[in-house]
Amino acid sequence: MATLTPNPSYSIALHLQLPNRPGMLSSVITVISDLGGSLGQIDLIEQTRDRSHRSINVDASSEDHAAAITAAVSAIADVTVVSAADRTFAMHQGGKITVNSRFPLTQQSDLAMAYTPGVGRVCKAIAADPERVYELTIKQNMVAIVTDGSAVLGLGNLGAEASMPVMEGKAMLFKEFGGVDAFPICLATQDTEEIIETVKRIAPVFGGVNLEDIAAPRCFEIEARLQKELNIPIFHDDQHGTAIVVLAALTNALKLVKKSLSQVRIVINGAGAAGIAVGTLLKKGGATDIWICDSKGIVSIDRQDINDSKRAFAVETAGDLSLAMRGADVFLGLSAPGVVSVEMVESMNTSPIVFAMANPIPEIQPELVRDIVAIMATGRSDYPNQINNVLAFPGLFRGALDCRATRLTTNMYLQAALAIASLVSDDEISNINIVPSAFDSRVAPAVAEAVKKAAREDGSALK
Amino acid sequence: MATLTPNPSYSIALHLQLPNRPGMLSSVITVISDLGGSLGQIDLIEQTRDRSHRSINVDASSEDHAAAITAAVSAIADVTVVSAADRTFAMHQGGKITVNSRFPLTQQSDLAMAYTPGVGRVCKAIAADPERVYELTIKQNMVAIVTDGSAVLGLGNLGAEASMPVMEGKAMLFKEFGGVDAFPICLATQDTEEIIETVKRIAPVFGGVNLEDIAAPRCFEIEARLQKELNIPIFHDDQHGTAIVVLAALTNALKLVKKSLSQVRIVINGAGAAGIAVGTLLKKGGATDIWICDSKGIVSIDRQDINDSKRAFAVETAGDLSLAMRGADVFLGLSAPGVVSVEMVESMNTSPIVFAMANPIPEIQPELVRDIVAIMATGRSDYPNQINNVLAFPGLFRGALDCRATRLTTNMYLQAALAIASLVSDDEISNINIVPSAFDSRVAPAVAEAVKKAAREDGSALK
Repeated sequence: MATLTPNPSYSIALHLQLPNRPGMLSSVITVISDLGGSLGQIDLIEQTRDRSHRSINVDASSEDHAAAITAAVSAIADVTVVSAADRTFAMHQGGKITVNSRFPLTQQSDLAMAYTPGVGRVCKAIAADPERVYELTIKQNMVAIVTDGSAVLGLGNLGAEASMPVMEGKAMLFKEFGGVDAFPICLATQDTEEIIETVKRIAPVFGGVNLEDIAAPRCFEIEARLQKELNIPIFHDDQHGTAIVVLAALTNALKLVKKSLSQVRIVINGAGAAGIAVGTLLKKGGATDIWICDSKGIVSIDRQDINDSKRAFAVETAGDLSLAMRGADVFLGLSAPGVVSVEMVESMNTSPIVFAMANPIPEIQPELVRDIVAIMATGRSDYPNQINNVLAFPGLFRGALDCRATRLTTNMYLQAALAIASLVSDDEISNINIVPSAFDSRVAPAVAEAVKKAAREDGSALK
Repeated sequence: MATLTPNPSYSIALHLQLPNRPGMLSSVITVISDLGGSLGQIDLIEQTRDRSHRSINVDASSEDHAAAITAAVSAIADVTVVSAADRTFAMHQGGKITVNSRFPLTQQSDLAMAYTPGVGRVCKAIAADPERVYELTIKQNMVAIVTDGSAVLGLGNLGAEASMPVMEGKAMLFKEFGGVDAFPICLATQDTEEIIETVKRIAPVFGGVNLEDIAAPRCFEIEARLQKELNIPIFHDDQHGTAIVVLAALTNALKLVKKSLSQVRIVINGAGAAGIAVGTLLKKGGATDIWICDSKGIVSIDRQDINDSKRAFAVETAGDLSLAMRGADVFLGLSAPGVVSVEMVESMNTSPIVFAMANPIPEIQPELVRDIVAIMATGRSDYPNQINNVLAFPGLFRGALDCRATRLTTNMYLQAALAIASLVSDDEISNINIVPSAFDSRVAPAVAEAVKKAAREDGSALK
């Protein structure tokens, strides 16, 4: 497998003590550079006549690479590595989210209003008129991030506890980008019925449910059943969040290569939750020629081993992924690291579009096909064109909560995708800029507006 | 029933426009005072040559009283009531807690470390060593506040949604007083097995469970089973939180009247969850003569209608509450509004101690027995000597989480109570000061220390 470029996942913070004389910092930096480390922030912590203390952030490409850099710096004469912290792990110490009061409790009367006895009046008001739970409690803005830990990122069935850092990160993104409060619910069960039952039982507190990293096919049943049995929006981000952002990015990519969604041939590799959802939303958006591949090759009509959701996409041609890619206009990878070869990309139609979205390691490293593809996208934040669900879910829930949507529809997803695509203007669009930045503050409000409009059209908004 | 004194539960914020001339504010204040309203903060919002805008907080004694005050102010010539907001309801708009990021996400590298792809490394680390969930996630400081809404305050079975304002208030108290993150889990089931099952399924996220406002007798089973089946501390606050603070307050009250816990006769009215727990902890603390009364009278050995938890307290004497109280030294009310008469209190032994803790309305209004009792306490924040669980649970969980206690024990409760009592010094102790203030910042750390020490003695601390 190709070596990764240095990236923040493997960032270290080196705290160094070095003699305060010309050339010392320079020699440290040279050693780091020679080993291929990528230098970030450099701070002077303290300086005396004799000594400097400096903190240097270095992105490495693996844990071994980080260790090698640390060892090399440590070997420089007169340089002491006081500490070498793994920045990713340091950031996770103690967890990433907190629960806070919306206002301080500083006097007795605050207690008497926010808690007993005053709170009893509020409880009685909700008991008398259950709708007021949306006015007088956190429900109006609170989303449950529900997982069973069975499909954590691309890493597989790691279980509830090991999934927590992802769910906490998701809660951060909900808050930072959508102003939505979200809380991780990581379940000690992977049974479909038990998951459904549990979410229904804890539902009173939540105004919406974001399903996350739940393996296919149970994720489909869970989403459908919860949406049927609860009157709050249920969203499986791995399916629909991905589909929304893929459609947004593909809309702009096709604009650049002057092809139309209704005419291109699209190969989706990966027939799991995300792959099927992407195919479904692309169809809704106007795509007509989609080939889906799973680990056994093209999902074709002669195959006996496919479920109904795959069968809806079955094509006449049978064969493997390399056959599917021959002549295709678009490759959408939602599968596994390294499954695409340079030759496969070379066999595509002119101006090939490749979205290699396997996380954390793409289907093909962008470096390998830089000169072949017209447009490349990945799921990673350290390459251009990140197909990042954060463009969709914060605004989607912001809109759904604000209009009290009772469910989510494919029409809402379509409108959200078009809203995201529209934020990249004709001036800005390029092969390394087909989606807005995750930090573009226009994204969530635009998505929220599109979702509210669609919810009202669909008749699923209560306000 | 006696009229309540004006209190913050029924506080209103009057926004008034009045002519800017001498005597106007005075006439408003006179009208409010004449009606028995209690004046709080008075702000000048805006003043011109002709007009003043003022905001006046007024505590009333009921909603009707607040309405009467508003109407009377409104009837003053030239005074306009721009708005009259119920401060308790205003405080609850949108809920009382939020979920926040512990650090901002301001650049791409933050996303790459806190979320994908970097977060995957943290997930794998926990999967490889499950203990690290306590280091790298919110679990180490996160408590679930679990209720089924079946016994909300003293208000009864209001259901999950209507219980939320209490659970949110509780979460605020956990944070403000103990630095503990806590999240409301209000369940759409009141079935014992389903509650146990649900809490077990969501347990991966939590380092502790605070059971709240769950009716007896199912609360006993739920607490015992969860403590047996999970290795995190399970605490039913209505039982043990109350017991801890009652014991703390009673310790100091007895000191004042120069009686000993082992010699006094104690009447506990209310044989629900709290009553039994208080009796149990008082025994552990050295009490020997406890009579418990339920709605049918004294729990006596000849009664056939009592469960095992009551039977443990059965005494020889049969009769009603008024018989029980005759000659008693201590009355502890954990029952219902107004069930105690002035005559009953008059029939007690010399220097009677009365804790009338029914919420929000006590067993007897303190005003009625002011001259009879030696020491009076209630559950309310607007009278002296509030028996407020907030003195116990934040510090208790702070200590239990910090030492990774796997369970809670009666010894920990006893030590917590003694720690609370000890914070009222001999100089400060008086009949209106038997417990520290809820705002005394020494309380939670003192309780936490006592709990950690006891947990280590009991062998239930993992660190």
